[in-house]
Amino acid sequence: MAEKGCVLVGQSGGPTAAINASLAGVIDGARAAGLRAMGMRYGIQGFLNGRMIDLDSALPNKDSFDLLRRTPSSWLGSCRYKLPEPGTDQSVYQELFERFREIDATAVLYIGGNDSMDTIAKLGSYGRSIGSSIRFIGVPKTIDNDLMGTDHTPGYGSAARFVVTALRELARDADVYDLKSVTFVEIMGRDAGWLAASSVLAEPDLILLPEIPLVEDALVERLSELLSHKNTVMVGVSEGVCTPDGHLVCERTMAHGAGTDEFGHRAALSGTSRYLASMIKGRLGCKTRAVELSTLQRCASHAASRTDLDEAFELGRAGVEAALAGESVRMCAFDRISNDPYATRTALVDVSSVANQIRSVPRSWINADGMGVSEEMLSYVRPLVGKLPPLLTALS
Amino acid sequence: MAEKGCVLVGQSGGPTAAINASLAGVIDGARAAGLRAMGMRYGIQGFLNGRMIDLDSALPNKDSFDLLRRTPSSWLGSCRYKLPEPGTDQSVYQELFERFREIDATAVLYIGGNDSMDTIAKLGSYGRSIGSSIRFIGVPKTIDNDLMGTDHTPGYGSAARFVVTALRELARDADVYDLKSVTFVEIMGRDAGWLAASSVLAEPDLILLPEIPLVEDALVERLSELLSHKNTVMVGVSEGVCTPDGHLVCERTMAHGAGTDEFGHRAALSGTSRYLASMIKGRLGCKTRAVELSTLQRCASHAASRTDLDEAFELGRAGVEAALAGESVRMCAFDRISNDPYATRTALVDVSSVANQIRSVPRSWINADGMGVSEEMLSYVRPLVGKLPPLLTALS
Repeated sequence: MAEKGCVLVGQSGGPTAAINASLAGVIDGARAAGLRAMGMRYGIQGFLNGRMIDLDSALPNKDSFDLLRRTPSSWLGSCRYKLPEPGTDQSVYQELFERFREIDATAVLYIGGNDSMDTIAKLGSYGRSIGSSIRFIGVPKTIDNDLMGTDHTPGYGSAARFVVTALRELARDADVYDLKSVTFVEIMGRDAGWLAASSVLAEPDLILLPEIPLVEDALVERLSELLSHKNTVMVGVSEGVCTPDGHLVCERTMAHGAGTDEFGHRAALSGTSRYLASMIKGRLGCKTRAVELSTLQRCASHAASRTDLDEAFELGRAGVEAALAGESVRMCAFDRISNDPYATRTALVDVSSVANQIRSVPRSWINADGMGVSEEMLSYVRPLVGKLPPLLTALS
Repeated sequence: MAEKGCVLVGQSGGPTAAINASLAGVIDGARAAGLRAMGMRYGIQGFLNGRMIDLDSALPNKDSFDLLRRTPSSWLGSCRYKLPEPGTDQSVYQELFERFREIDATAVLYIGGNDSMDTIAKLGSYGRSIGSSIRFIGVPKTIDNDLMGTDHTPGYGSAARFVVTALRELARDADVYDLKSVTFVEIMGRDAGWLAASSVLAEPDLILLPEIPLVEDALVERLSELLSHKNTVMVGVSEGVCTPDGHLVCERTMAHGAGTDEFGHRAALSGTSRYLASMIKGRLGCKTRAVELSTLQRCASHAASRTDLDEAFELGRAGVEAALAGESVRMCAFDRISNDPYATRTALVDVSSVANQIRSVPRSWINADGMGVSEEMLSYVRPLVGKLPPLLTALS
């Protein structure tokens, strides 16, 4: 075990409310081992350009360290940068390993999603090829919860807690007038429906996921049936919902301008809820509303899940411990022992089994009609979100 | 003073996170006076159709009463219904006063915005004309904070707290990549900029209000200057911002289809931030993002201001006390004694000075260039929002 040297840590991909808790865990692990902690500014891309920060002087006291644990977004900055294949372009790797040597890096920790695990895999592979002793460990984060090899990912629980909190409150807001209405709440998750599925804790009437192609006639029929016996219908809908022919529903909101907005720019992929609200208003004649939860889902640390923040910290620390125990090219992960009482243990998985993969919500956790989720999904997500403060029962 | 009889209370207009706290205050005031509390379901419109609820049996214990205080939206249901002029159509009034008599109403409290004060004014006027002894009192609520006659309105502080909390977190999220970007955060307030102005507590770079017509060239110039020395620019923008020719900026997002969406429906008035993001992307070439805070602003009780909830309760209770002291056709209000330490006293104002009026942000509280607010605005809103948990200072 190295007494000297340093732990180098970077953050990559989209931020979350818990990614700084993992950073704090890494720093804590380094300090516990008597190692310096250095941070990459703007991920591996910034580091390539010499952007670094000494984390020991940047976080000089317990107050700043504790604040880091609950400050949202990527405090070190992030990047979306894919390393070249080691076989095709070695110059970037030579540059990186020269910089690792300069700071005497013992371990490199990278906190991110499946692209970041690709980075760890490539660094490890190149390192082995040149006989480097540096260990490379991935620490997962993504609100999408779509990484292979782990029960769940840090960031997901907090995003889910915000989604559930918002949807519960929006349902109350939608219910104030004595009229029929359908509210579509648009939830992040382009490829997998984990976050949309978490809305089950707010008890929406329907949940629409990217895993199941949306048949408009079936949706119209279900909503019509629901409206026949209740005033207010709530639908949690993933931004990634597709039609049976494989197109994103949100592409339809851009139909007039062939995917461009009024300036001719390619518009961002949002608008699923707006499309559905407009379609249902036309076909059922009821009031409809579209709510996009937007970027707040991933940075709402004011609604963070305590369990999520604690687990994110724990995984950062476990990453350093694994590296110092000689592990490399691995991702820290969670195995779940039980739902109730909730218990997990940390594990290590090969990054190659995670990199560039996507884990979907299992078909068996989705209702037969594809417009809701099962008890298994509920039991899975409940402990990650944590207890919610009660609201007064609505009047019937 | 009546020992028998009841206090009848209704909620009207758009819900807020604090309107149920006012309802709880009214109920508390009635109980303190030994009077029954009855609630109108769906406001005066539902009441006209015989929709009522006995609040003493609906809230049988302290737990349910305490939950009511912090449950968002209008628990009794709401309406948007304007009473006819008493001089033109008396049948509605005859019907209403017959119902008041049936339940032996001593006082009628109506919690709402300026339309609700119009209701109180008309009921009071008709009541006087027939010699009724029933007292009519308005209890203000609106997240827009645009009522005359009061320092501020319950509901505003909580909405502002959510806006500020969200904007602070979105600013962190926007700052993760090493590139130039402008984020427009769209805030409610069609006619007055109070809620957008509250975002000053999150220290955005610019604030755009409905009070000041937006000159696009001036905005482009200011943003260009800001981007010359910083990466991440945040703009809090009211949904009600207009162009110098008096049109809403958001109308421009509907330019292609003459204000209709892909189904030919009249679209809701949103899209100010989307328009500005697209315009600035075109003119400055930087990354832009549009975030609509949407309906969550008015129902996010999870981010409610403690001061706001307490004041909303206090005003509901003060309304009953005023009615039982013989006051009528009045609205409960706040006079501010000082900003720091924050101190107010309750007051009573004539509803006729409030009904159908709008209070704007004073010109002297807005910067000379019209793209920000002054220290006065900051001092005004700070105590209403309350202390915010600190975040770790961003790296420079």
